[in-house]
Amino acid sequence: MLNNYGIDIWSDDNFVIEKGLAKVNFKSKPSLISIVKEVREQDFKGPLLLRFPHITKKQITTLYDTFNTSIDEYNYNGTFNAVFPLKVNQLPTFIHPLIQNGKEYNYGLEAGSKAELVIAMTYNNLNSPITVNGFKDKEMIHLAFIARSKGHNITLIIEGINELETIIGIQEETHLPCPNIGLRVRLHSGGSGIWAKSGGINSKFGLTSTEILEAYEMIKENEMIEYLTMIHFHIGSAMNSIKPLKKALRESGHIYAELKNLGAENLNAINIGGGLAVEYSAYERNRFYSLREFASDVIFTLRDIAKQKGVDEPNIFTESGRFISAASTVLVTPVLELFSSEYDLEHLKLKESNPPLIEELNLLFKDMVKKTSYEYMHDAIDHMESLLTLFDLGYIDLQDRSNAEILTHQIIKKAISQLEVEDYEELKRLDENIQEKYLLNFSMFQSLPDYWGIDQEFPIMPLTHLNKKPTRSASLWDITCDSDGELPFDSKKALYLHDIDLNKEEYFLGFFNVGAYQDTLGMKHNLFSHPTEVNVVFKDEEVVLEKVIESQTIIDILEDIDYDTSDIKNRLKENLDINTYKILEKYLNENNYLKTIWSYND
Amino acid sequence: MLNNYGIDIWSDDNFVIEKGLAKVNFKSKPSLISIVKEVREQDFKGPLLLRFPHITKKQITTLYDTFNTSIDEYNYNGTFNAVFPLKVNQLPTFIHPLIQNGKEYNYGLEAGSKAELVIAMTYNNLNSPITVNGFKDKEMIHLAFIARSKGHNITLIIEGINELETIIGIQEETHLPCPNIGLRVRLHSGGSGIWAKSGGINSKFGLTSTEILEAYEMIKENEMIEYLTMIHFHIGSAMNSIKPLKKALRESGHIYAELKNLGAENLNAINIGGGLAVEYSAYERNRFYSLREFASDVIFTLRDIAKQKGVDEPNIFTESGRFISAASTVLVTPVLELFSSEYDLEHLKLKESNPPLIEELNLLFKDMVKKTSYEYMHDAIDHMESLLTLFDLGYIDLQDRSNAEILTHQIIKKAISQLEVEDYEELKRLDENIQEKYLLNFSMFQSLPDYWGIDQEFPIMPLTHLNKKPTRSASLWDITCDSDGELPFDSKKALYLHDIDLNKEEYFLGFFNVGAYQDTLGMKHNLFSHPTEVNVVFKDEEVVLEKVIESQTIIDILEDIDYDTSDIKNRLKENLDINTYKILEKYLNENNYLKTIWSYND
Repeated sequence: MLNNYGIDIWSDDNFVIEKGLAKVNFKSKPSLISIVKEVREQDFKGPLLLRFPHITKKQITTLYDTFNTSIDEYNYNGTFNAVFPLKVNQLPTFIHPLIQNGKEYNYGLEAGSKAELVIAMTYNNLNSPITVNGFKDKEMIHLAFIARSKGHNITLIIEGINELETIIGIQEETHLPCPNIGLRVRLHSGGSGIWAKSGGINSKFGLTSTEILEAYEMIKENEMIEYLTMIHFHIGSAMNSIKPLKKALRESGHIYAELKNLGAENLNAINIGGGLAVEYSAYERNRFYSLREFASDVIFTLRDIAKQKGVDEPNIFTESGRFISAASTVLVTPVLELFSSEYDLEHLKLKESNPPLIEELNLLFKDMVKKTSYEYMHDAIDHMESLLTLFDLGYIDLQDRSNAEILTHQIIKKAISQLEVEDYEELKRLDENIQEKYLLNFSMFQSLPDYWGIDQEFPIMPLTHLNKKPTRSASLWDITCDSDGELPFDSKKALYLHDIDLNKEEYFLGFFNVGAYQDTLGMKHNLFSHPTEVNVVFKDEEVVLEKVIESQTIIDILEDIDYDTSDIKNRLKENLDINTYKILEKYLNENNYLKTIWSYND
Repeated sequence: MLNNYGIDIWSDDNFVIEKGLAKVNFKSKPSLISIVKEVREQDFKGPLLLRFPHITKKQITTLYDTFNTSIDEYNYNGTFNAVFPLKVNQLPTFIHPLIQNGKEYNYGLEAGSKAELVIAMTYNNLNSPITVNGFKDKEMIHLAFIARSKGHNITLIIEGINELETIIGIQEETHLPCPNIGLRVRLHSGGSGIWAKSGGINSKFGLTSTEILEAYEMIKENEMIEYLTMIHFHIGSAMNSIKPLKKALRESGHIYAELKNLGAENLNAINIGGGLAVEYSAYERNRFYSLREFASDVIFTLRDIAKQKGVDEPNIFTESGRFISAASTVLVTPVLELFSSEYDLEHLKLKESNPPLIEELNLLFKDMVKKTSYEYMHDAIDHMESLLTLFDLGYIDLQDRSNAEILTHQIIKKAISQLEVEDYEELKRLDENIQEKYLLNFSMFQSLPDYWGIDQEFPIMPLTHLNKKPTRSASLWDITCDSDGELPFDSKKALYLHDIDLNKEEYFLGFFNVGAYQDTLGMKHNLFSHPTEVNVVFKDEEVVLEKVIESQTIIDILEDIDYDTSDIKNRLKENLDINTYKILEKYLNENNYLKTIWSYND
């Protein structure tokens, strides 16, 4: 069976399979492998992040077009606006093209810390909105006032009454023009039950009804009502159903209308936060709504409430991050090694006289026919366990143990090939026993932290061989010294890969939809740092590789964690002849991923 | 009830409570708060990592003394040796004192990547061993040869046959002296069942029996048998029972003996890897063995096998990382705010005429007596849910909703105080409903990544007020814009903290045993970087703060993620008067954590 790795489910037509190759579905349709080879010609080994700004642009366009179509359809009087939450990806190679591509829509930025606010106030287009979320100190609020002075359209979304007090204080102290003010609402409708953690009354973020009223009074008393422009809520990341959003819209819509009716005359916007999901699965759809439904529901619900309460329809803001960024980035990992050949029959070295259970295994292997295969396989596994115990007790030797491992493995393999497995699920379960281990030149902790932390799936597909049937049930290993750095074969989400002789050809795996959070959450386990990255842009039909940044060199990594690198170099020189030191210095200036995999037999 | 926060369970006498203060149990016994205040005098705000090299030294001493005592007791003929796995903490402020304190024992280092190997070959004492684990390229193996040339006692522990081929190739190519060679064994006895992931036959690391035999033949053929010195295994991190270790010792002990008997004449060591656990819980012991039992079991088992097979007793190597480093580091987080005052009765603003359910809530609150408290509380929660629905449908207004929130909260509080809760567990469960939210100036993702990733507990204790009863059931929030950045109140592991007026006094929480992995796995969520750190050393009775490194400044953080910082500064200058820009530049040179929390009323 040919395998398309679920590309119909996750790729949104950004990538296609043609002539066995994974290709970028844009303009000249370059294959991913051709891009990878071009970068690797510069002798950059290790993992590679390919960024495609045209995909980011497509997502921005889709977001605005879909909402604007719904606005027209419902004759809605508010406008649609959006900001990109910097926490999802702050890297300049991603952010610079995003700002450029978003300019025509006045697409803005959201900041959640002072460092992020500095990025926003430096690079955001002046006509595009900046929103500021998260807990804020006096300095951050002062930065927002300075951004406003520079001409930015900036809104401070307050998380607590003390932030409002600080805004009032800074205005009195500096007489700078005041940023707009938003109130983040603590929803009751986010979670299941009113005391639930996420979105519930005990949630981490936002103001209670009591605090909203208190904030409103405080704003009025200080004659700042003109600055109160926005109600904000966020119901959580990557929602797979649209129902919680509808509830949250009703709740916040009423809060908006109530404040309007109390006298918040410039209040004109509801910021619905993020939560627009991305399809990460290669096996079945997890997102049960379209962007069109999403937009229609938002507009319909808000129009309904505005009508009921007799207030103007609010402008709409969104802060979707995943939806904009995830699809734009592909992680490419070279396969370094396949590990299962140790069980080949050629290694079997039976003795003249073998322990009885080994003889038994040998007979099972020879005599196995279709009818007996299931039974013999289970017998073999039992015998294997007994033989391991005998080894631990000193009754059999290492050669016996090796023979037992090989015979058992071969028996399982033969059984699977003979079995008429009616049940495809059962076959996949059996495949767990003969999985092939693929060693990948990357760190799971650095490049897929959400896999480690929250079991996030990512679509996986080889870049080549896609016109050949993949036959090996695969487990994937990274190069860290951590047993968690593994994607084990899972019969429920079975990954099959090709049987490759790496001495003869290369083999690369792509991990897709990695453009959200993975860059910025990456961990330096074993000091493996950010992969080599490149922006792939299209000048007419030509593919141009821009902003190639190689993964940090070893000496830079050590400097980053505050080692004195000149001290390191001086110490390394000691007791070494100059030629050897020169080689050593060359290694210091290469990146930390594996480079030359060199076989004695080459 | 006074609360000692489980210090008897987790502190191993490194810290004590005296006169209400958490103190370092060493020499002049300084309080942690006195150290924190001294650092903060330098105007460093945000989280603080306190490192205590004397604790690392104590752990090294304990490890060697315990093993050497067992060796004497059993008249064991092998020696005890240990290396520190750099992946657990590579930072120079930790590593430099470790190397210095380990010198008298010839305590060495273990490296798992080229960057870590460079650290080891630069700073390790020449007489102390270096072991090299993990997957290796040609360059890494060449580095090991260079380290050997410099006079290091270094062992390459091979993970696959191709690494051995590379060793042979490099020796032929360079004629440099060859490092020692170790073979990592793929155990069958680590997991449960032979096909289990961790330690089982499908585990990520090590050679199968067949490969061990193949490696041995290859070493013999190439006349390198003199370099084969070590068998290595690792059964997984932080084991809480000693049973799997015993099984693994038997298995690897037999492999050692078999190879000796085959002719591996210089084979003289078994490296038992890491796995020595640390007590992370403040509630109940999770580690069910003592270091003494651990050492005795290792020595007894190995002696037994050596005797059975008639070979020399092997030297023992360990690679314990957590045991050496965890206890040495304390994370201190300032509490910025308590959040629950919004439900105080003073905010209640009942109208002349209220919706029926609000009147009902008000009656429940007034009429509640001991006998009815449980019933009334549940009625209140039901009413609250109905009122929230009424609000979403537009039937009640924001003031009604605020009144409902306050009344319900007050009813629960009153009920809990009146209830005669026989069952302490039930009381803690109820406390979830009136928990106080403590906002902490730190990032969970940066400073406690294992809490996010693998639900790792860490002991938590305030630095002061320890002579006062803590009354508030606490949930802890970090300052990231992520709802995962929260340690919710858990009635099964209930954390109670003090009710503090932060306008009048400061309050700091300590997270203990954070010295293993947390530094190096830290994630830059929202660009919050490594905390400010300091080494606390004792010169006689005097406490000296060494190597104070402030958390990165905002401009440094942006440079680290490859922004052009001079471009940033130039753009920020635009449209700003010089005085405002000067303030902005000052902010750029401060760290990214919250600094001034300033109230209007101050």
